[in-house]
Amino acid sequence: MRIFITTVFAFFLFISTNAQQKLSGFFPANTQRQVDYEKEFDALISTKNQDEWMKFLTSRPHHIGSTQGKANADFMANLFRQWGYETELSSYDVLFPTPKSRLLELFGDKPYKAKLEETTLKEDATSGQKSEQLPSYNAYSADGDVTAELVFVNRGVPADYEELDRMGISVKGKIVIAKYGGSWRGIKPKVASEHGAIGCLIYSDPMDDGYAEGDVYPKGPFRPKQGIQRGSVMDMPVYPGDPSTPGYGSTADAKRLDRKDITTIMKIPVLPISYEDALPLLTALNGPVAPASWRGGLPITYHVGPSVAKVRLALQFNWDYRPLYNVIAKMKGSEYPDQWVIRGNHHDGWVNGAADPISGMVAEMEEARAIGELTKKGYRPKRTIVFCAWDGEEPSLLGSTEWVEDHAEELQKKTVAYLNSDGNSRGFVGFSGSHALEQFFNEIATSVVDPQTGVTVSERRYAKSLADADRSSKAKLIGNKYFKIGALGAGSDYSPFFQHLGIPSANIGFGGEGDGGEYHSIYDSYDHFTRFKDPGFQYGTALAKTTGRAMLRLANADVLPFDYSILVKTIGEYVADVKTSLELKRTDDEMLNRLIKEKVYELAKDPTLGFAGPSPKQLVPYLDFSSIDNAMTLVRTSSEELKAAIEKAGSADAQKRARLNEILYQSEQKLLNPNGLPRRPWYKHMIYAPGFYTGYGVKTLPGIREGIEESNWKEAQDYINIVANTLLQFNFSLQKGIEALR
Amino acid sequence: MRIFITTVFAFFLFISTNAQQKLSGFFPANTQRQVDYEKEFDALISTKNQDEWMKFLTSRPHHIGSTQGKANADFMANLFRQWGYETELSSYDVLFPTPKSRLLELFGDKPYKAKLEETTLKEDATSGQKSEQLPSYNAYSADGDVTAELVFVNRGVPADYEELDRMGISVKGKIVIAKYGGSWRGIKPKVASEHGAIGCLIYSDPMDDGYAEGDVYPKGPFRPKQGIQRGSVMDMPVYPGDPSTPGYGSTADAKRLDRKDITTIMKIPVLPISYEDALPLLTALNGPVAPASWRGGLPITYHVGPSVAKVRLALQFNWDYRPLYNVIAKMKGSEYPDQWVIRGNHHDGWVNGAADPISGMVAEMEEARAIGELTKKGYRPKRTIVFCAWDGEEPSLLGSTEWVEDHAEELQKKTVAYLNSDGNSRGFVGFSGSHALEQFFNEIATSVVDPQTGVTVSERRYAKSLADADRSSKAKLIGNKYFKIGALGAGSDYSPFFQHLGIPSANIGFGGEGDGGEYHSIYDSYDHFTRFKDPGFQYGTALAKTTGRAMLRLANADVLPFDYSILVKTIGEYVADVKTSLELKRTDDEMLNRLIKEKVYELAKDPTLGFAGPSPKQLVPYLDFSSIDNAMTLVRTSSEELKAAIEKAGSADAQKRARLNEILYQSEQKLLNPNGLPRRPWYKHMIYAPGFYTGYGVKTLPGIREGIEESNWKEAQDYINIVANTLLQFNFSLQKGIEALR
Repeated sequence: MRIFITTVFAFFLFISTNAQQKLSGFFPANTQRQVDYEKEFDALISTKNQDEWMKFLTSRPHHIGSTQGKANADFMANLFRQWGYETELSSYDVLFPTPKSRLLELFGDKPYKAKLEETTLKEDATSGQKSEQLPSYNAYSADGDVTAELVFVNRGVPADYEELDRMGISVKGKIVIAKYGGSWRGIKPKVASEHGAIGCLIYSDPMDDGYAEGDVYPKGPFRPKQGIQRGSVMDMPVYPGDPSTPGYGSTADAKRLDRKDITTIMKIPVLPISYEDALPLLTALNGPVAPASWRGGLPITYHVGPSVAKVRLALQFNWDYRPLYNVIAKMKGSEYPDQWVIRGNHHDGWVNGAADPISGMVAEMEEARAIGELTKKGYRPKRTIVFCAWDGEEPSLLGSTEWVEDHAEELQKKTVAYLNSDGNSRGFVGFSGSHALEQFFNEIATSVVDPQTGVTVSERRYAKSLADADRSSKAKLIGNKYFKIGALGAGSDYSPFFQHLGIPSANIGFGGEGDGGEYHSIYDSYDHFTRFKDPGFQYGTALAKTTGRAMLRLANADVLPFDYSILVKTIGEYVADVKTSLELKRTDDEMLNRLIKEKVYELAKDPTLGFAGPSPKQLVPYLDFSSIDNAMTLVRTSSEELKAAIEKAGSADAQKRARLNEILYQSEQKLLNPNGLPRRPWYKHMIYAPGFYTGYGVKTLPGIREGIEESNWKEAQDYINIVANTLLQFNFSLQKGIEALR
Repeated sequence: MRIFITTVFAFFLFISTNAQQKLSGFFPANTQRQVDYEKEFDALISTKNQDEWMKFLTSRPHHIGSTQGKANADFMANLFRQWGYETELSSYDVLFPTPKSRLLELFGDKPYKAKLEETTLKEDATSGQKSEQLPSYNAYSADGDVTAELVFVNRGVPADYEELDRMGISVKGKIVIAKYGGSWRGIKPKVASEHGAIGCLIYSDPMDDGYAEGDVYPKGPFRPKQGIQRGSVMDMPVYPGDPSTPGYGSTADAKRLDRKDITTIMKIPVLPISYEDALPLLTALNGPVAPASWRGGLPITYHVGPSVAKVRLALQFNWDYRPLYNVIAKMKGSEYPDQWVIRGNHHDGWVNGAADPISGMVAEMEEARAIGELTKKGYRPKRTIVFCAWDGEEPSLLGSTEWVEDHAEELQKKTVAYLNSDGNSRGFVGFSGSHALEQFFNEIATSVVDPQTGVTVSERRYAKSLADADRSSKAKLIGNKYFKIGALGAGSDYSPFFQHLGIPSANIGFGGEGDGGEYHSIYDSYDHFTRFKDPGFQYGTALAKTTGRAMLRLANADVLPFDYSILVKTIGEYVADVKTSLELKRTDDEMLNRLIKEKVYELAKDPTLGFAGPSPKQLVPYLDFSSIDNAMTLVRTSSEELKAAIEKAGSADAQKRARLNEILYQSEQKLLNPNGLPRRPWYKHMIYAPGFYTGYGVKTLPGIREGIEESNWKEAQDYINIVANTLLQFNFSLQKGIEALR
């Protein structure tokens, strides 16, 4: 579901550590054996299988509920079984709306009826499978038939509505049109609806992934004028999964919410459109010229609106429950069968879904096959390895969430870590996730070779971040090859594991050199992928080696390679960051109020435009951070003590080590708060969550940070104390780890 | 010729000074009289005259050599005479090429013949005067008929060719197409020719002043698809004026260079085109996709080229000498007839030229009329006031340069200051020029009222700079209403006065709220101006009050308001800045070389693109700045001493004051070096010059700065010492000022 964001490289901070060829978690006596094992593993990874599997898995549209979707699940389950895995299809019935009728038209002088249709291309073999393709739509849009003037709202995020207010433009009773990008798409209709809009269109501007970025398909990889980005608009920042069973599995006997009582279904009709369909609509807008930063790549002057001519948007959906089919394949561990290392990627696509998700899925399958082969040769992993292929990720992480909710207790008890991918491409390795695994992933990245350059993927990623850095960052980066991993927001199947259950998780993938505009369109096909994203599956191989290696090290480690001192250090950075953001908000708001009082904005503005200046802000109070500062002191000490104790764990007996390992993989769960975040109890992790108003984008220390951002001071203060208490629980767990080795 | 650049506001630095209602240069006993005089002056300024004059002056195309151009000169001369000025038409014969034939066509699959023609609009009354309009062209292009592949070179500045090198694209033997903007237009063919190109097209991209910026003409003010920017491409950074008489007046008996010996005529054919004509050409390009920062607003994927299809560019010009007609109008001073305060604006346009130049010309005329009226009432200025209306500014500052060269000795002896404008628009006041007049202009700006807001133009300008500032700049700006004036580059008629003769000069104008895309097209008309640029001539009035007030204060001052301590402080900032730029170049190049050595760029690049990384740089030496540092110490002390002495000048006798005033207005001449700048001896001012590779853009301490930028270390070192010597001469002049009062 999530597209690889190349700009993430700009944010990596490197810190000085030498990570060459170390194998964290292995006693010296066992290191060489693991290295040899990984070498055998690498030798088994093939590009040919991935190519063949992708060809089959993308041969027809394979969204949840489709014939091909079920066929794919069966196909994969059969393979996993052949490779020696205990394999089951795990099925849940979930609410999955599909379009019954769609109509979008513009009235007035230059009437236009939107095509809402992507063209079959002779250069793309599967683009003509019309009868099986889902029409372009946003899943979990409301039913509705609305007619109103149109207003352009830029990306449709809260800041855009502040700008509209200054221009004196209201969206109340209007239909809004927003560009894709700048937030997760579901934020756009949510915010529009909060401001009184009665309908929402989302279009792909050519500036973002169309001709402005490069040649369009089929000449190049970018979005052609008729390309449409499908996608869910369910309010996933509240909770993902089946919307009728929040927080528990959609089992046959589950109690289900009535559709009318579900809060996460969008309240207004929403439809994604192409830039070909957007052009006549945007051209019909009157009103002020859009601010410079709002303008896109169409050959028009972008106006904000409203239009004189009205627009009609009429959408009806089939609100059906459909069965989904996860594939769950287990290889029991030889020593710790009740400790699970889980790997997953989804298998459902919006249409033929090659890059998203099959490119990641086939890498995972190749990992599973190689491990299966090795097991047959006698190399059985010490811990249980679980490979998952999730269904229904695209609409709302349905398969993973229902399975995780259904097995929550067992998973919290047994899961060492969950490693996710969600597609793959050519370029540079990216890791986001639990910071206790940061050193571990650094080591992994130094032992996988980049297929294009022959250096390690760590080395190449370092080169990229350095080449792209600005002057001051270069000086900080140079020589520091250790990389900081990203924080996890939302947008793929790690979310239930990580943010709901506190299971250490990571998302892994390559990208940055396979950009295109095929995302969630009929053009995300085998033909497109093999021409533009990862020709020859070289990076599919690199991903299999990277993620497979991580699976094998976690499965075989003597002491699990969690370094909580790094997590604590990272949390410390987040604490410093929320303090800074509070101070900046104070300084900025004070400055703003002073400038308003001194009439600076009134005098500076162009009086002929009739726009209002900014409004004064309420004073920013000082908050009491002492509870969190005190808690940080304790966890800092404990995490360092634990690290020191682990370095001597080689002398501890097996029972102590077993106890230690269990504490190590369960400690992140102590960072959960049972009541979750404000207005969204499903999200229980106190350190990381998707932003309530950004969607995919992570908010670290979300309870505190969003309180500050939304000037909800009471909530910010409450969450400072809640996070502090959570840290005390976490500290207790670290202390138990230290005690376990005594 | 020059368009108002709104972004200049971002660079203003405010320093703390209270400048409220002070009248520098007037003894207390004379202050009120001047204030009253200015009040009478203001009361005479009308909008109606400006409107009527503009209507006449723009009624037909009035380029140099045109019937209307001569009629305009006569019209103005008559008015000046009526107002009591001794008025003459000053005429010179100058080389002014005009098109004989123009052809641009694309061959290949999709052949296209460029229209090279702007459409008559019924909403624009003068747009249909085809028989009198000069066709769209770049003056001083070479004759030529070339056929070759096309290459897109972005803005066509040196950095763009470095990027082309990395992509492995050569322009040798090719025709290049460049976007307008990013440098003065003449730089583009000059650099293209230096790289071996045989022809050059320059087009107006809609991102810069077309539909991407706002509605196009006639709906809005921006450039329509067929709009073409005419303009000169003579190599004016070497010398302006008639190219056949470098450094001396084009008088009847002047010795003229043969055309073949003139170095400033462009060596290749150059043609400006519309974005309508550019589109098929850019669409025909193959090769790499253009870097993101190169892309414009056309609905295509911008490629660099070369094209497969060839392009033919055939241009022939009439290389005729034409008479130009400056209007020179003098009002003799009552006390110091041999001290001249000069005011100028050009009167020639590229076509009907309303904004550029008539909007500034009519403000100047209204100043002259008001002063004339006052003189008739007995308020005769103490110093001689000279109003000039220059001809032939557009091709190459022809009228002003020839007149200045012709009268150089007299001007250096007599001229107190030269105040220029070059059009006007709605918005915020801008001053650039001699920094010794910075405090003076600050005072002027606090005594003129902004027509839209009722505060002073200083106050409004302060509000704008503060509202637009970023966080860190806001904190620096707030409360500091004193503004730093800009440094003068080139692009209008101050250039010969300032950079050739060292006469204190300034360019003054309003702008920032009248943006459009009419520049140098047939649409720069009365209709366009009065709808979009300054409806009702409110800012024409503000300009007349601002510039007229400056004229009157300079004409009547007891002690001329030159504060050389501010100029010296500013030079000190430039010295610090060139030192910093040298250090940054050293650090950057060292970092670059290190990263190249460590293969960072090799590993970071996408190997499928086949681009080269950056090339290693030679080491940056340390330069010896001691001579300039020593000289700065002396001038700093002298300028402070002089300032202190002037504060007590009220007690000095008239003769001493007369001597002092002469020294004050002649001191900036001491900053000239008789040999001028490297490879361009015409430019003699050692502190300010237009950039050799930027054109309009100023380079401060140009000899040193351009030496550093071009890694010409010997030249940079030489000019450090030359500037130091120049500062010593200047110091001697300041010391003479101090002595004059003893």
